Amino acid sequence: MNTTGRLFRLTTFGESHGEAVGGVIDGCPAGLSIDMEAVEHDVQRRRPGQSTYTSPRNEKDSVRFLSGLFQGVTTGAPIAFIIENRDVHSEDYDHLSRVFRPGHADYTYFCKYGFRDPRGGGRSSARETAVRVVGGAVAKQLLAPLGIDCRAYTSQIGCVQLPKDLSARYSREMVEASPVRCPDPSISAQMEAEIAAAQSACDSVGGIINCHIGGVPAGWGEPIYDKLHAALGAAMLSINAAKGVEIGEGFALASMRGSEANDQMTTDDADNITFCSNHAGGISGGISTGQDIHLRIAFKPTPTIGQEQQTINENGEVVLLAAKGRHDPCVVPRAVPVVEAMAWLTLADAFLASRTDRIE
Amino acid sequence: MNTTGRLFRLTTFGESHGEAVGGVIDGCPAGLSIDMEAVEHDVQRRRPGQSTYTSPRNEKDSVRFLSGLFQGVTTGAPIAFIIENRDVHSEDYDHLSRVFRPGHADYTYFCKYGFRDPRGGGRSSARETAVRVVGGAVAKQLLAPLGIDCRAYTSQIGCVQLPKDLSARYSREMVEASPVRCPDPSISAQMEAEIAAAQSACDSVGGIINCHIGGVPAGWGEPIYDKLHAALGAAMLSINAAKGVEIGEGFALASMRGSEANDQMTTDDADNITFCSNHAGGISGGISTGQDIHLRIAFKPTPTIGQEQQTINENGEVVLLAAKGRHDPCVVPRAVPVVEAMAWLTLADAFLASRTDRIE
Amino acid sequence: MNTTGRLFRLTTFGESHGEAVGGVIDGCPAGLSIDMEAVEHDVQRRRPGQSTYTSPRNEKDSVRFLSGLFQGVTTGAPIAFIIENRDVHSEDYDHLSRVFRPGHADYTYFCKYGFRDPRGGGRSSARETAVRVVGGAVAKQLLAPLGIDCRAYTSQIGCVQLPKDLSARYSREMVEASPVRCPDPSISAQMEAEIAAAQSACDSVGGIINCHIGGVPAGWGEPIYDKLHAALGAAMLSINAAKGVEIGEGFALASMRGSEANDQMTTDDADNITFCSNHAGGISGGISTGQDIHLRIAFKPTPTIGQEQQTINENGEVVLLAAKGRHDPCVVPRAVPVVEAMAWLTLADAFLASRTDRIE
Amino acid sequence: MNTTGRLFRLTTFGESHGEAVGGVIDGCPAGLSIDMEAVEHDVQRRRPGQSTYTSPRNEKDSVRFLSGLFQGVTTGAPIAFIIENRDVHSEDYDHLSRVFRPGHADYTYFCKYGFRDPRGGGRSSARETAVRVVGGAVAKQLLAPLGIDCRAYTSQIGCVQLPKDLSARYSREMVEASPVRCPDPSISAQMEAEIAAAQSACDSVGGIINCHIGGVPAGWGEPIYDKLHAALGAAMLSINAAKGVEIGEGFALASMRGSEANDQMTTDDADNITFCSNHAGGISGGISTGQDIHLRIAFKPTPTIGQEQQTINENGEVVLLAAKGRHDPCVVPRAVPVVEAMAWLTLADAFLASRTDRIE
Repeated sequence: MNTTGRLFRLTTFGESHGEAVGGVIDGCPAGLSIDMEAVEHDVQRRRPGQSTYTSPRNEKDSVRFLSGLFQGVTTGAPIAFIIENRDVHSEDYDHLSRVFRPGHADYTYFCKYGFRDPRGGGRSSARETAVRVVGGAVAKQLLAPLGIDCRAYTSQIGCVQLPKDLSARYSREMVEASPVRCPDPSISAQMEAEIAAAQSACDSVGGIINCHIGGVPAGWGEPIYDKLHAALGAAMLSINAAKGVEIGEGFALASMRGSEANDQMTTDDADNITFCSNHAGGISGGISTGQDIHLRIAFKPTPTIGQEQQTINENGEVVLLAAKGRHDPCVVPRAVPVVEAMAWLTLADAFLASRTDRIE
Repeated sequence: MNTTGRLFRLTTFGESHGEAVGGVIDGCPAGLSIDMEAVEHDVQRRRPGQSTYTSPRNEKDSVRFLSGLFQGVTTGAPIAFIIENRDVHSEDYDHLSRVFRPGHADYTYFCKYGFRDPRGGGRSSARETAVRVVGGAVAKQLLAPLGIDCRAYTSQIGCVQLPKDLSARYSREMVEASPVRCPDPSISAQMEAEIAAAQSACDSVGGIINCHIGGVPAGWGEPIYDKLHAALGAAMLSINAAKGVEIGEGFALASMRGSEANDQMTTDDADNITFCSNHAGGISGGISTGQDIHLRIAFKPTPTIGQEQQTINENGEVVLLAAKGRHDPCVVPRAVPVVEAMAWLTLADAFLASRTDRIE
Repeated sequence: MNTTGRLFRLTTFGESHGEAVGGVIDGCPAGLSIDMEAVEHDVQRRRPGQSTYTSPRNEKDSVRFLSGLFQGVTTGAPIAFIIENRDVHSEDYDHLSRVFRPGHADYTYFCKYGFRDPRGGGRSSARETAVRVVGGAVAKQLLAPLGIDCRAYTSQIGCVQLPKDLSARYSREMVEASPVRCPDPSISAQMEAEIAAAQSACDSVGGIINCHIGGVPAGWGEPIYDKLHAALGAAMLSINAAKGVEIGEGFALASMRGSEANDQMTTDDADNITFCSNHAGGISGGISTGQDIHLRIAFKPTPTIGQEQQTINENGEVVLLAAKGRHDPCVVPRAVPVVEAMAWLTLADAFLASRTDRIE
Repeated sequence: MNTTGRLFRLTTFGESHGEAVGGVIDGCPAGLSIDMEAVEHDVQRRRPGQSTYTSPRNEKDSVRFLSGLFQGVTTGAPIAFIIENRDVHSEDYDHLSRVFRPGHADYTYFCKYGFRDPRGGGRSSARETAVRVVGGAVAKQLLAPLGIDCRAYTSQIGCVQLPKDLSARYSREMVEASPVRCPDPSISAQMEAEIAAAQSACDSVGGIINCHIGGVPAGWGEPIYDKLHAALGAAMLSINAAKGVEIGEGFALASMRGSEANDQMTTDDADNITFCSNHAGGISGGISTGQDIHLRIAFKPTPTIGQEQQTINENGEVVLLAAKGRHDPCVVPRAVPVVEAMAWLTLADAFLASRTDRIE
């Protein structure tokens, strides 16, 4: 299944070193004007080569839309697009083609399909996430007019972390001003040093991304299996290298008491219902409460590193491997727009589903 | 969507204080002998009234199968079953019917559906999970003959936790010997004290469940959106009160370096491919590696507590609420079989999907 | 897959001689008052034992709703219901249990599942359609307030047919006054004679059902694979014994010219857009035109007959079989409410989908 | 929904006068060698400009594969492909851009999406079927090694028809030798005359396509809603201009008796189970019997004709329209490979589903 979503669906295709990557968005309502520059801007946020901390692969990542738009407006037909693969150095991977890289999906793909596509990780490459960013950019343009906003940022790199404060509000400018997408300049600098240290050791480092979503009205999400946080959680865990997700206070709730964890309710001056706290992260019983939605996603370190590691070749022999080629020492900064994209896609799906909740 | 799974599908129905809860399993292959006593045993593990730490609601939870079996063997037809609701004390909920309980899904259901079913939380009650346990018990009987085993246990209650050791192996007997399903007798006793303290304070407490799955062959799971850990993660986050999930070392991977986090590969004496470690938790690139699969799921404290809390009634007025009725001070022990059920259901789906991976 | 529909979904279960048949309706919007007597009335229209021309099996077919309703109103939760099997004479089938009945699904089920459930055809029995009628009755109550009406009637039994006139309008009373559900009394009498003749020859006979749907607004249906007539067609072909379906003039369009077949457009006195004809049957390009929708469905004769026929037993030996037991000599009259039910279910799905067609 | 299939899925995109049409095949097992020349050959069979009876639009329709293949072998990743639109004469459609063509989907798309894409019918153009042919060509290569063969041919154009004989066997050479794809040379000549007569009258004509599928083993198809003939029927009704479908004797079964319609069973010299007839068309109870599968599909005449017809413009005014531009006077010959493609796609899906029917 290379499709995500039930009503707002994105199907992706393409390998990192094939002809192109691309996608098909199906189910986007008709009549939506698409700001192409905004799409392109989002794609550029994800692309490699933006700083010394990301892979030097230089790709323009220009998106070519093939269908579903007429004079810049969605028609209800499927919206297909491709991003050609231009800066392909497959020879970089020649030395990897007959070994399984530790921590990488080479071995499991081989076990599943009985087959090895050695070109740059093939389908498992993070390049596939460029397609998600395009899908997310369209979903964003569907939802932003409703007042919804989604912002992710780096909250931890290696051992350097922002104080965990779910109520903190960071502007997009603060995030984008940092080469590691951490909104606190001083901690950003420490994170940069953490990455540089790993890089100089021919090593890599993991991290955590926080995602805050504002403006979602109360009542979105499905109560049992497609709980809004389960859908968001699955979307986040589908990002390369993601190994954990929590909603609201998440794992910290395990050591709380109910009297502390419950978000008590009250009314504001205008007699609107409000909450006294937001430990639950904006979702209760799988359905949005109208508060901000908070997620945190843990990423493991990039598996492909320059240090020698023990692994197996296709003949089943133990060999030592020190990877060459262009690899990010830390995927986290570039994963920030991917986290946002997956959030937008999931919310667009929940939005369309909410239209069928009641008789009118 | 009250259906989980794509090939091995469970659809559930029923409210906690309606006539019955039940489910339909569709897609179970024909020819499988179902051990009814084993199903009943699993259901009994989840039911309330097992100890002083769980809700005193006393239900036999006897499962009545309606279809899909002939002489105890699956026929390929959908397997429907119901569990009648017998011990229903709806009057317990009368005092709740016009207020929104803090931390509970009352308010969000109301926002979504414009409607309030006050009877015991209706569909959002944990009683729905009894149905999942039946579905999981059937999935288990499909998979266990392949050598797959799935065991969950309580690893944290409030501030009491087992040492985090993914390699620890606990027998089912050790787990079931503990009233809180913690395999270490001394820590179990501390956890019991933690629950008792919360209970005596008219409060509740959260916790963490670990889930170890052994015997899954390499190659299960889908590489992009239905990654095996994304599917397992969504399944776990669909359990009432779950607020976080991690795979393998999970959030701890964020502060590791690649050289430390990568699971290097080697061969054993019989020249089989093995791994030198299992930080990834048995899944790489969304596909099983053949190692044990490790998950950890965080649960928030039960929201319904006896302490007074501030909330809103249906007229939008601020009121104080101290809940009466039968409520677990800690849902974690009873959630252990639900975690296992969701794992079995997800794995059964991945197993059937794996049959179409390659030409034969 | 025992589920039909994408947004308004019906999952069915149960075998004709098992404990019960039943279903789960998922996706019905909240806030719909269900008229239970109307549901029961629809179910009684389908049940056996209504006339000498239908199977004498006498079942009350009383529907028990288990969930999804509160004080008679849908809550948004899945609506489950069962119909217990009471008048089960499994011994009637003992003589069939080791042979494959010609024209019946016994043999193909055996080939598919490697398994034989001999009790009254098991899952392939028309009894499953009682469940569809319940689902259709709920869908009808969702759509009827929009002004949609769906009426089916028998237009052919054996060689006796109503003149093919798509514009004919028959009231429900005219249809229900006929024991074979043919609205023309004189032709109804001939049809009855046709069935009686077949019955006295220990034989059975086929027929055709017409289905007219009025009030569907222009714009429902999906343009490519889920064209409204493709969805209706699949729904009709999923009814037992259905072997053909046509929309509008259907097969007769093959010999028409475009100038004759096209439905030219004009305006009425109130300047509304109207059509000069309706050869297309109310659907163009897979999307409703706002005109009446016309379908015709062909049914083969009941396969189980009293005449001796050559067949095979489970040992692969050729044997002669003359079926005993209770079997309709013609399924068509009882299939009329099933045709309507499948139309209602398909339309409810298209209705909900139409809510996501455009930005608002 | 622009996706067909559950396990072997084809998603299509593109408008007839946009940048490109294309598709994504998801779920094709890994390890299948794709014969690209065979794919291209199938596509060329559908393309316009092949004879005086088809649209003179001249497109090379060259397929560019973007992903999912490594050294010509499927990898398990989604197989994406595009066909660029080169010979686009959008100006041909200028005179159509503000009127709704009678019999065409212009009006219904407008009602659904509130939007008009005037370029050559946009998404509703038959050009979309080129993509289905590519999908079908891949599905064929999956199934042909199992001994399955699928051949469609024209059995009726206007009032000229082949004798209805389901047992007739025509070679592909006989079909392809005819410019209208009718295997009988003398009747083919009459059909050509029928089309020529319509064309010289600035008119169009409809027809019927028969489809014979051999080699499908007994046991494919789902018993209730995804009956094999319901899935095939929906696939056929999803083809532009299709207005009816029948299986086996189809509508003729309505006037048969059971003793005549039932396919009695026997054994052949090698003691294999066989049938004495095939009135059911190779499917019983929704599941393949192992006999040949027979379908017939009715097509209405092309709606766009040169004769003047009354219609409505976007201001709601009645106008007369005589269409110009390149339009087939009869779509049937070009629809023959599309019928085959839809059959192959449906069968590939049933094949993969059959792998999960039983425990092994």
